[in-house]
Amino acid sequence: MSVKEDIPAIFLDKISPKGLDAIQKCKDFVEQYCLPADKIYLEQLSPDPTKRWKSTPQITEKLKKKAQELGLWNMFLSKHYAEGAGYTNLEYGLMAGYLGRSLVAPEATNTNAPDTGNMELLAKYGTQYHKERWLKPLLNGEIRSAFLMTEKGTSSSNALNISVSAKKNANGNWVLNGIKWFASGSGDPRCSVWLVMCKTAETKAIYENHSVLVIDAKKALATGNAKLIRPLHVFGYDDAPHGHFEVEFNNYEIPSEDMPHSILASEGRGFELIQSRLGPGRIHHCMRLIGAGEQALLRVSHRANNRLIFGTLMAKRESFITAFAQHKINLQKCRLLVLNAAHKIDISNAKQAQREIAMAKIETPRTVGRVLDWGIQMFGAEGVSQDTELARLYAINRTLQIADGPDEAHLNQLGLKEAKKFALASEFFAQQEEYRKRLSNL
Amino acid sequence: MSVKEDIPAIFLDKISPKGLDAIQKCKDFVEQYCLPADKIYLEQLSPDPTKRWKSTPQITEKLKKKAQELGLWNMFLSKHYAEGAGYTNLEYGLMAGYLGRSLVAPEATNTNAPDTGNMELLAKYGTQYHKERWLKPLLNGEIRSAFLMTEKGTSSSNALNISVSAKKNANGNWVLNGIKWFASGSGDPRCSVWLVMCKTAETKAIYENHSVLVIDAKKALATGNAKLIRPLHVFGYDDAPHGHFEVEFNNYEIPSEDMPHSILASEGRGFELIQSRLGPGRIHHCMRLIGAGEQALLRVSHRANNRLIFGTLMAKRESFITAFAQHKINLQKCRLLVLNAAHKIDISNAKQAQREIAMAKIETPRTVGRVLDWGIQMFGAEGVSQDTELARLYAINRTLQIADGPDEAHLNQLGLKEAKKFALASEFFAQQEEYRKRLSNL
Amino acid sequence: MSVKEDIPAIFLDKISPKGLDAIQKCKDFVEQYCLPADKIYLEQLSPDPTKRWKSTPQITEKLKKKAQELGLWNMFLSKHYAEGAGYTNLEYGLMAGYLGRSLVAPEATNTNAPDTGNMELLAKYGTQYHKERWLKPLLNGEIRSAFLMTEKGTSSSNALNISVSAKKNANGNWVLNGIKWFASGSGDPRCSVWLVMCKTAETKAIYENHSVLVIDAKKALATGNAKLIRPLHVFGYDDAPHGHFEVEFNNYEIPSEDMPHSILASEGRGFELIQSRLGPGRIHHCMRLIGAGEQALLRVSHRANNRLIFGTLMAKRESFITAFAQHKINLQKCRLLVLNAAHKIDISNAKQAQREIAMAKIETPRTVGRVLDWGIQMFGAEGVSQDTELARLYAINRTLQIADGPDEAHLNQLGLKEAKKFALASEFFAQQEEYRKRLSNL
Amino acid sequence: MSVKEDIPAIFLDKISPKGLDAIQKCKDFVEQYCLPADKIYLEQLSPDPTKRWKSTPQITEKLKKKAQELGLWNMFLSKHYAEGAGYTNLEYGLMAGYLGRSLVAPEATNTNAPDTGNMELLAKYGTQYHKERWLKPLLNGEIRSAFLMTEKGTSSSNALNISVSAKKNANGNWVLNGIKWFASGSGDPRCSVWLVMCKTAETKAIYENHSVLVIDAKKALATGNAKLIRPLHVFGYDDAPHGHFEVEFNNYEIPSEDMPHSILASEGRGFELIQSRLGPGRIHHCMRLIGAGEQALLRVSHRANNRLIFGTLMAKRESFITAFAQHKINLQKCRLLVLNAAHKIDISNAKQAQREIAMAKIETPRTVGRVLDWGIQMFGAEGVSQDTELARLYAINRTLQIADGPDEAHLNQLGLKEAKKFALASEFFAQQEEYRKRLSNL
Repeated sequence: MSVKEDIPAIFLDKISPKGLDAIQKCKDFVEQYCLPADKIYLEQLSPDPTKRWKSTPQITEKLKKKAQELGLWNMFLSKHYAEGAGYTNLEYGLMAGYLGRSLVAPEATNTNAPDTGNMELLAKYGTQYHKERWLKPLLNGEIRSAFLMTEKGTSSSNALNISVSAKKNANGNWVLNGIKWFASGSGDPRCSVWLVMCKTAETKAIYENHSVLVIDAKKALATGNAKLIRPLHVFGYDDAPHGHFEVEFNNYEIPSEDMPHSILASEGRGFELIQSRLGPGRIHHCMRLIGAGEQALLRVSHRANNRLIFGTLMAKRESFITAFAQHKINLQKCRLLVLNAAHKIDISNAKQAQREIAMAKIETPRTVGRVLDWGIQMFGAEGVSQDTELARLYAINRTLQIADGPDEAHLNQLGLKEAKKFALASEFFAQQEEYRKRLSNL
Repeated sequence: MSVKEDIPAIFLDKISPKGLDAIQKCKDFVEQYCLPADKIYLEQLSPDPTKRWKSTPQITEKLKKKAQELGLWNMFLSKHYAEGAGYTNLEYGLMAGYLGRSLVAPEATNTNAPDTGNMELLAKYGTQYHKERWLKPLLNGEIRSAFLMTEKGTSSSNALNISVSAKKNANGNWVLNGIKWFASGSGDPRCSVWLVMCKTAETKAIYENHSVLVIDAKKALATGNAKLIRPLHVFGYDDAPHGHFEVEFNNYEIPSEDMPHSILASEGRGFELIQSRLGPGRIHHCMRLIGAGEQALLRVSHRANNRLIFGTLMAKRESFITAFAQHKINLQKCRLLVLNAAHKIDISNAKQAQREIAMAKIETPRTVGRVLDWGIQMFGAEGVSQDTELARLYAINRTLQIADGPDEAHLNQLGLKEAKKFALASEFFAQQEEYRKRLSNL
Repeated sequence: MSVKEDIPAIFLDKISPKGLDAIQKCKDFVEQYCLPADKIYLEQLSPDPTKRWKSTPQITEKLKKKAQELGLWNMFLSKHYAEGAGYTNLEYGLMAGYLGRSLVAPEATNTNAPDTGNMELLAKYGTQYHKERWLKPLLNGEIRSAFLMTEKGTSSSNALNISVSAKKNANGNWVLNGIKWFASGSGDPRCSVWLVMCKTAETKAIYENHSVLVIDAKKALATGNAKLIRPLHVFGYDDAPHGHFEVEFNNYEIPSEDMPHSILASEGRGFELIQSRLGPGRIHHCMRLIGAGEQALLRVSHRANNRLIFGTLMAKRESFITAFAQHKINLQKCRLLVLNAAHKIDISNAKQAQREIAMAKIETPRTVGRVLDWGIQMFGAEGVSQDTELARLYAINRTLQIADGPDEAHLNQLGLKEAKKFALASEFFAQQEEYRKRLSNL
Repeated sequence: MSVKEDIPAIFLDKISPKGLDAIQKCKDFVEQYCLPADKIYLEQLSPDPTKRWKSTPQITEKLKKKAQELGLWNMFLSKHYAEGAGYTNLEYGLMAGYLGRSLVAPEATNTNAPDTGNMELLAKYGTQYHKERWLKPLLNGEIRSAFLMTEKGTSSSNALNISVSAKKNANGNWVLNGIKWFASGSGDPRCSVWLVMCKTAETKAIYENHSVLVIDAKKALATGNAKLIRPLHVFGYDDAPHGHFEVEFNNYEIPSEDMPHSILASEGRGFELIQSRLGPGRIHHCMRLIGAGEQALLRVSHRANNRLIFGTLMAKRESFITAFAQHKINLQKCRLLVLNAAHKIDISNAKQAQREIAMAKIETPRTVGRVLDWGIQMFGAEGVSQDTELARLYAINRTLQIADGPDEAHLNQLGLKEAKKFALASEFFAQQEEYRKRLSNL
């Protein structure tokens, strides 16, 4: 089936022929390779907690090769980047809508978070050295990366709270102390580079006290002064082999040879970098979630075709089909929000599209969560189990109401922006009196 | 303020310069003339039930003159019509988003329901005679019209239930019998023509038994065989002078001289005509409602700027601003749904855009209803009263969950269409097994 | 049918035989007299705005006589009052669940707001004079009363904002100035006494600056210094002949002969009085609303039995019956909340039952609102019209989310009370560590 | 704190002194022993999938001893049973409200599902042999049990679909074939007896073809003809060591010596038994969930006291405290529903309380799910992790919208029962016309 049927009317003429071709290839690759590979991937993961983090399922490498052959590689890196695949955010957004249907598709096409955001940062702010040493192998899918941001015991959505410190010692080297957690991807055996949001100063210019450090993860772990403490779970999932670890720095000193390359961009620009990292990434996440929601509906509609409920086919039950239609509408509303935001980024930039991005980020996980919850319910006990993967999707989706800023923070910020316009409303009504007087002379 | 700021990014390059100019003029006209005129309009309406239906507030004619001067006239009639103002549905949709903010704006610009749908029908299906006699004065805003569809005691959303009958008598003239109700606009003293959905045959081809009759309303009422029985209320409002009447036909015979022009299109095409009537009209309604929702938020934000709640300005209360932001998001989601549907009509037609129109029709009144209900709550007792007009908007909006087919009917139909694709889902999962086998050879 | 079937199990043994008998009589009286009288009542009301407020429908007096014969009179006045009918709040609550089903039943049984609350105040705080002059004819249903509280331009839910002032003039008489609005019942031609919350002092003891004045309404209006400015509407309804008026005091001086009886309780006790007035009244309101909700479901189930929707009886449609069941559950939850609160008042007092009352007050109108909205939808266009009275019930119910304190205020207050216990939670978790240590020795 | 403060007013005088004492002891035991033991329990569970099912955490036995000392043992078995602890369902319901706050409390007090339901069945229907061999050690907490009901590939909520068959072979012994799954507790190393719902006949009396077989689990597994295939997961949790297994019967023959005791009650009474099993059990589940919800709110309020959100203590944020209050109300509504149902069972029986039980069963998991979801959100990333246990509670709670019949089934059944009364509604409105006529003579 042509992907054109999935694209809302208003976006059709915004897609280049090259983009359309890639979107179609994405859909086909996901359906013919990735979705069937998902089960294999999970079977190839060791259930043994001591081995689970030591290797990655072999199927992944096969899929990566296939994706590269098809030219489905690094599509997330938009045309603004020299290294980019040349797609717009809108085009990639539509691709992500398919990639999100499968567990392995993002990794298979090297479009997996958090590597995508990290690659964007390295491409935008990295030195030639950073690009050669880290960006290149990341773009090649040879290594993986993590962004260490969230900290225990404080609201990391307010980055001013970040307190893992990096201080220069007598050698002039950064020494790190403190605990990060929920460092996604840090458990992966291939994870080689950490970008770490640190407090590098204590000045009054509170938005300039933080920096992003670039750390060779394997070297750091080898010293014993940086440690993977434990995997954090999401519901009962550990998301091995990537995982979300608690990482402790205990007087970890960056080796002298790495010091010249230890800061991304420059000291004190941590806030700028984390801001820059978030815009398009949120859009990618949202589109993947919508894809997951659509996959759940597909799964449910297959079941509805085969399951009798007290003598009536589920697909014939009024409450089923009206609920199904409602979920379709809800996903469509999110899709329009997200793609409109993607397009706004394309024609201006992430900063100008902040309002649109926030709306998409707030609405999508909520909506998809309801779709998945309903999907679970329609499958009964099977729905919560490992047999449908709906519960896993639910857990992943649920975290997106928290990650990159909880809904509450975004809604509050949006509200504060709206409130700035309230004075205009009062002016408006004041003026109405004037206009009313003029009307008597009409 | 430029209307560009109100238009979602993705639609910006779809608006012609002419369209953009008209949208801006609409906004200004509504703000400077219509909104200030709303109160005057209501004051000029007699509270006396015996006079209330006999004349229309004078302010209307003044506004109509002004609108014509500004070229803001009949904008609803899209470029598909010879008589059209030359705008796309998308462009007019954006205009309707402003017109809907004011009670009188639609009439002031001759874009009031049900006249709009009636004019579309007459323009598309009318003979030269129909156009000269009815369409022209309607387009000029000299007369008004009604569409008599809904009947007492049956679900008119299923048009097969329509039973007001027209049978030919010995003179070869149609004789009508039965009762219509909720005939919007039929109370207006200027209402001159009725389009009446009648059962004109009893054949087995059940979708060909109905026809739309064109009836000279004043002539009919003069005979006494057609009667305005009583106005139906909407939450206590009678919507005078237009109203929604119960209309009884008691052996009403169409006069011989009108018989040659008594059928719109031709006999048995009633279903085709009512189908044709509904597509763009639903979009217009939705955009007007969104406009009403935005106006409510404007009103609320003015209040929030001035009202202390237990010592804190309402505008500073967290629960207020987050609720405000949420309603803004919700309206934005509807706006995208509606405008996407309008654009789909523009690039294809109403039939092909059925799914998009249904989604917009289902979601918009619900969403706006919640906005208005919240607006009422924020105004306290004043909110339910005549002083804010929010309750009137609520009542109008509420009927749109019923009119032109209740939500349930649309959702059901949408669900049935989705269910037709369920077989594809089953094929899909069958095929997945094939693909999984192939993967082992990858 | 025995009312026992409507009473939740847990309340059964709390009802006295006398109470049970009265509840049954209430149900029968409502079904056999009041509900059939509702239409007659509305027909007897003049549509003419100049006459509508001048007399009350005759049917009312007939019903009152019948109710008195049956001993169904003043049941609201609980056993705490010497003048009381001797029922508990729980017993009367169950009666109100039937009275609320009919428009006229509360007036027919002399249990109509705001008279009920006013009678409670007069019984509790009135002097012998007050009781003779006002309470007696009120208890006899000969006159009616109003409580003038809410003011324009401020949040009256915070009574500190009340600013209609009463100051003593040279004669030593109170002189009132300011505007009250939404004075329910003040439009009634029989309305003879106003209780007016006024600011009578400007001291620093801000909770002691207000008093409730007792004013002879007819005398006041005769002077011209107190005026009924206009009726406020509720969603298009004026609720004639009782209404909700804007009342202006323009140097209105209480005549010397009334001065000795001009203050209820004593000066500066306004806050105490309004607090006292509200507890049981809220419970009465809630039970009446639940009754209205049940009546709506009854009406809907009758329709469901008779209406075909695309060939299927509404009563057979899955989405209909599951929605019906859900609304039944929702009403049941409110019923339990409300009756539990009523019982708590009975075994302690309104102050101690504050939390329970607040919960009932917050949940009931919301829940009933959704029942009524669904009822409207199930009736289609007829649902919003005067033919089902569902829209009128909706409007009445909607105001109860605002009157006697908006939901937001109650929820906030409840939240603040809960927050006072948060420190206990922290203690609890601190202690858990202790307990954990002890466990090792277990 | 006295438990009296947690008991809704209306239930207070229904609790015996003995019951009140036990409720208080339950609360104290849970707070002082069970909650602190929860973490220890999870630490003592091996993460190794090969060992995880082989032993149970030692802490459990210590707690069981303590509970027995305190007399907190088998409280679920109501006074209807000879072996019962002598409490009413209402009393035990209130205890379950505390037990549900802790992961280990139910097992510690021998009130864990599915053993409770199984013990009830054995007590009611078991022979002396059954009681001696299985009930006694179960009541002593020495062994555990499972009820094998749900089957793969069909809706087990309709028990007619149950197809695991038991047929007598030439020896006259039952031979079982087929697959059960989600057999809760079957993974436990102490699980010694299975009650298996089987199809034992194929007659036309379709409700008499099923029987409950009593199977010695260890013996069965030893043959290799009954196998634990794999644990089913719930949102990633395996719930070891109890688990929810897929169990396969492959020509498993019940040994001759067990045949005389192989059927509970008698052949063909499977439906009767599963009906009997469900009533009070649902109430227990609901009260435990409400307890879990309360525990989550306690946890959240502790956090709120300590967590700054953009400079404001969470406990001071309006949106936090109003949400908190709303969740408190919602839990209270469920508590009233559940306890009212429990009391109705106490004063009549489970069958007569079916409507009340269904309402409780439908509303509770939904409501608690929203509480837990909000709790998770308030904890941010920590909320989905193993550190708060909120996600585990969410998963457990979520299954209760499916187990013992999905919400949809219960709502449908409730709706069908309501629909039986629709004819009465029509009678009612027919009669109203009569009454209206009579009124004219009043």
